[in-house]
Amino acid sequence: MSGDEQRGLSRRAAWAGGDNFISRLMTEALARPDLVSLAAGFVDQQTLPAEATRQALDALWADPTRTRIALQYGTTIGHRSLREAILDRMLKADSLGPGGSGPTLDQIVVTAGSNQLLHLVADTLLNPGEIVLCAAPSYFVFLDTLANVGARTVGVEVDCNGIIPEALDEELARRKTAGELAAVKAIYVTTYYDNPSGTTTTTTRRQQLIEIARRWSHENTIYIIEDAAYRELRYYGDETPSLYALDGNLDNGEQVIHAGTFSKSFSPGIRVGWGILPKRLVGPVLAQKGNVDFGSPHFNQMLMATVLQRGSFDRHVTGLRESYRRKLDATLASAEKWLRPLGIDWVPATGGLYVWLRLPDAIDTGLGGSLFRRAVSEGVLYVPGECCYPKEGYPCPKNRLRLSFGVPSVEDIVRGMESLARAIGTLG
Amino acid sequence: MSGDEQRGLSRRAAWAGGDNFISRLMTEALARPDLVSLAAGFVDQQTLPAEATRQALDALWADPTRTRIALQYGTTIGHRSLREAILDRMLKADSLGPGGSGPTLDQIVVTAGSNQLLHLVADTLLNPGEIVLCAAPSYFVFLDTLANVGARTVGVEVDCNGIIPEALDEELARRKTAGELAAVKAIYVTTYYDNPSGTTTTTTRRQQLIEIARRWSHENTIYIIEDAAYRELRYYGDETPSLYALDGNLDNGEQVIHAGTFSKSFSPGIRVGWGILPKRLVGPVLAQKGNVDFGSPHFNQMLMATVLQRGSFDRHVTGLRESYRRKLDATLASAEKWLRPLGIDWVPATGGLYVWLRLPDAIDTGLGGSLFRRAVSEGVLYVPGECCYPKEGYPCPKNRLRLSFGVPSVEDIVRGMESLARAIGTLG
Repeated sequence: MSGDEQRGLSRRAAWAGGDNFISRLMTEALARPDLVSLAAGFVDQQTLPAEATRQALDALWADPTRTRIALQYGTTIGHRSLREAILDRMLKADSLGPGGSGPTLDQIVVTAGSNQLLHLVADTLLNPGEIVLCAAPSYFVFLDTLANVGARTVGVEVDCNGIIPEALDEELARRKTAGELAAVKAIYVTTYYDNPSGTTTTTTRRQQLIEIARRWSHENTIYIIEDAAYRELRYYGDETPSLYALDGNLDNGEQVIHAGTFSKSFSPGIRVGWGILPKRLVGPVLAQKGNVDFGSPHFNQMLMATVLQRGSFDRHVTGLRESYRRKLDATLASAEKWLRPLGIDWVPATGGLYVWLRLPDAIDTGLGGSLFRRAVSEGVLYVPGECCYPKEGYPCPKNRLRLSFGVPSVEDIVRGMESLARAIGTLG
Repeated sequence: MSGDEQRGLSRRAAWAGGDNFISRLMTEALARPDLVSLAAGFVDQQTLPAEATRQALDALWADPTRTRIALQYGTTIGHRSLREAILDRMLKADSLGPGGSGPTLDQIVVTAGSNQLLHLVADTLLNPGEIVLCAAPSYFVFLDTLANVGARTVGVEVDCNGIIPEALDEELARRKTAGELAAVKAIYVTTYYDNPSGTTTTTTRRQQLIEIARRWSHENTIYIIEDAAYRELRYYGDETPSLYALDGNLDNGEQVIHAGTFSKSFSPGIRVGWGILPKRLVGPVLAQKGNVDFGSPHFNQMLMATVLQRGSFDRHVTGLRESYRRKLDATLASAEKWLRPLGIDWVPATGGLYVWLRLPDAIDTGLGGSLFRRAVSEGVLYVPGECCYPKEGYPCPKNRLRLSFGVPSVEDIVRGMESLARAIGTLG
């Protein structure tokens, strides 16, 4: 019996953990307002869509009937016109015609950000002790969510093209040998501009990933959870078809759970996300959501539907991309100037909010290591790579770290990168 | 292994249930738009605060800095000025001075409606197989939530003053005899204008309830979950002090979990609720919330804070009470006229949205019974009492039903009540 259970709490409460490293980072940041935070995953304050939101609210209030509907309860699956707009965008982004192999409206579920969708899916699929194979590194909040439901997370190696098919195949073979294949319920990947690694899974890799998941789905379906939170934040290169779309072409779309959100591309304060679910999971996920909140706030859903219908979303994303592209460029140029000479390298991201650094092997980036302390005293915060690795599988390297370039100005990015280089330099 | 597990879903997914009776009721309602629904727990469409919300949005948009903060991420515990406004209201309603025995700001957690708070508390306290003693009848959505986390629900008899202390004492003694006392984690009561029974727990009963919970908290704390969702909807009588306030005077406020919401008193579409938590539960509940959504939508929180700061909330509630009071009066007058002669009785509610009827013993109000069918064919929907009873403990009577008077107009209430009387009359 754990300490939490002794205090009368549930096992889940113990698994939820307590004081996490994000709160430690925030404490650091609050104590030192002069710090440049290259740690926080917040979005750029200056580009938040105050005017577009205002116009959508005006449009919503122009019709008293719609205003009242927005202020009332909605349905658990979500507001229909929002779901239609999401479907429409998804079909266009994946170059799918309506009525073809793409998703249908009844597969689209609105949630409080993509994070709620991920939590609902975890609750729906996983018993304590069951396994999710995760890209190593992975989005650390979802690793916590999986721990919270008692699931085991097993890391699979990635390279600059995403999760490595051979590594995934080998991990599945190991699980089979260990008699654990039936416990493997899902594979988790952030397919666009990964948090934290910055990489985008190539189309070939996506196809291989689906093929592997299908091939190993003997005893039960091994779902692929495709986290597409950053899809809209594309600064360079062409659109890549979603895993969902590729799966649809192969197998009627029953393998992939797709999670999307307007939090990064529009506003986290409005917090509207969605899932596109295999048909057989729609009912169970909605039953779970019914118990949690019987539907996300209707007001936020109708607001986002109005934003989309008015074309404000696309205009906003166009501007956002330019602003973030400049920040990405500044981050990479600063890295080239100050970090490359220190033996540090990275995969240049083409979108998203993150650059993932590999430092010389001898440097420990961890919260308990000397670099983190020195970086804080030089005036810069980062996320230690150790926070981003699943508990089992691919071993956690000590020399990685995540930079977020979304929040600080270009000037602060440059200043922060120079500070980071100074901190690393003093270790040599 | 259940069917759901065979399909690769979790035990929790099986416990979440599938097609519930609410969706059956909604299907009935959609198929027959002429039906008067005395079933839905929605709020009155006409009194939704379109103008007050508009003014608060204008005020929020008058300051570009605040607008952007609203559109950004917030903290997991919730927006400070909203929590201050909630605390201030709570202290006033309970006639407590600041700094006295009342709650402090760090005990107030903002959630997506009170329902999310209830779900977080269930996740934080309960392992599968553990027990919550519930008023019989109880709010059926929370009964589903408890089933969803695998908890056992045991019903305790209520009368017109709330849960019966002797019945609660006896149930606890039975659990002790059965060696199950350590598994009893909480007692769940809706203390104001109960959903579904309409009753308000008297102050004496509240004190007895706290005394009993404290006396039986040997092996672990038996928390009292006080659902105060309807507190603001008071049409007759004086304010009653919350269980939370009474507990604070007795024991530093460590026994009661208080759940409140602006959904019923302002707007369910905005969906802002809160919990006031014993200090030792704040950390664990926030850790759980961090895994689910790391904070409710900041936009909604700042909107509600603005509504409260401007005094719009109090003005709105004043008008709302008048509107709902007329509907309650119409419901009770119609019941007196058409239902009393049929041998039906009820406890007159003094607030909230519900009237709970006790029919003659021979009448089965259930979804499978003949009354439900006849009521639908006469043009009226109700919630069968059988949906509102915990699975164990106090046995589910077949002859109860819940009427909701929040949504229909006074004219529709009168028409619906006459239809219900006709349906019951044809059974005689």
